[in-house]
Amino acid sequence: MKIHILTLFPEMFDIFNYSIIGRSKEKNLIDINAINIRDFSKDKHKKVDDYPYGGGVGMIMTAQPIVDSIRAVRNINKGKVIFLGPKGKSFNQDMAKELSAESELIFLCGHYEGIDERVYSYIDDEISLGDFVLTGGEMACIPIIDSICRLVPGVLSSSESFMDESFFSGLLEYPQYTRPEYFENIQVPEILLSGHHENIRKWRRVQSLRITKEKRPDLFKKFELTKEDKKLLK
Amino acid sequence: MKIHILTLFPEMFDIFNYSIIGRSKEKNLIDINAINIRDFSKDKHKKVDDYPYGGGVGMIMTAQPIVDSIRAVRNINKGKVIFLGPKGKSFNQDMAKELSAESELIFLCGHYEGIDERVYSYIDDEISLGDFVLTGGEMACIPIIDSICRLVPGVLSSSESFMDESFFSGLLEYPQYTRPEYFENIQVPEILLSGHHENIRKWRRVQSLRITKEKRPDLFKKFELTKEDKKLLK
Repeated sequence: MKIHILTLFPEMFDIFNYSIIGRSKEKNLIDINAINIRDFSKDKHKKVDDYPYGGGVGMIMTAQPIVDSIRAVRNINKGKVIFLGPKGKSFNQDMAKELSAESELIFLCGHYEGIDERVYSYIDDEISLGDFVLTGGEMACIPIIDSICRLVPGVLSSSESFMDESFFSGLLEYPQYTRPEYFENIQVPEILLSGHHENIRKWRRVQSLRITKEKRPDLFKKFELTKEDKKLLK
Repeated sequence: MKIHILTLFPEMFDIFNYSIIGRSKEKNLIDINAINIRDFSKDKHKKVDDYPYGGGVGMIMTAQPIVDSIRAVRNINKGKVIFLGPKGKSFNQDMAKELSAESELIFLCGHYEGIDERVYSYIDDEISLGDFVLTGGEMACIPIIDSICRLVPGVLSSSESFMDESFFSGLLEYPQYTRPEYFENIQVPEILLSGHHENIRKWRRVQSLRITKEKRPDLFKKFELTKEDKKLLK
């Protein structure tokens, strides 16, 4: 997958040189290309922002450098242009899955008070990370790219990718324990040491159901309980 | 504000050397201190993960290095320990505001399939970025820290901080335009060039109301319309 990012802070995307995404870049599974919008400014001082028409405080990103940077990328690439902005649909796992099937994506990160409205006709989609304010689109772009890339085939090892199945089945995960058996006098639940796979499976299912019910009643309500789930909960 | 981050990837937090947060670090308004959990491992190979008890694929972070890193930070600092995890409350602007009033915060970033459950007794709070899966807690920690830090007094200039008032008043922002008046034949709406402040204010309010109604009916429903809003919408 090829990802192009249009940003005023390309250095921020060095974050993808580490861990799982860093490894996938080395294996050429993912190509992340951060492009500086400022390089496209036709202003002699390379200005990229100006005061809003109609008054008001703050600076607005001007249309020309953004639109020219979109054109430059689009000229040789075919991805959708996705703007990270507060008016967009809230990002979720379904969107991550959908976007991970694309071969190319172009992300546009805004900064300051926003972008000139006339840029919107060059944008295919707007995505919001959530209902909170960030210093710039980069901060939303980073976890979104991470969450998309980890779904690209080959990025996660088979054991790592297990998480998807168990985790976003609509239930929260059961408690996990690892060595040693005693940590500061607290023992691992005995059932996990029993070797009885069927009992362990049931215990974990009950834990998942209980934790989801307690911590995320909204998810629990949407979740369709199986016959066994109903029995286990009694 | 002092922020301590317990992580396996401290380099990732170099992202805060840029832009608004970078500037605030230089001004000593914000101190961001990323600590490597691996440095606390008592294992001779500095191992930090192991197989889950009870079977299953993936690796679990062991309790000892995490708990010792929490103790080391806590020994000299007083912040709440916040774990970035899927079972936590979903992050929002109210939480950002609340946390921005603290003088110190300690964030714990998990990796792999999760952390040993016995670590939970050392954690004060769990926060989730949203309903999507990430490669590690770092990817959630970054926008959350950004969103908290920008609310710390002095971090934003007075013009930048305007955004809070207008933006998270419960309505989405009106369209913004900046120079030039014509961009590729598309003119700025004439009203914004009129100099008639009262008309501009009303036009912007109507735009905000309409955009919110269309793009975020959930926000619009919660929003209490003023008498003037009702009149403007007609």
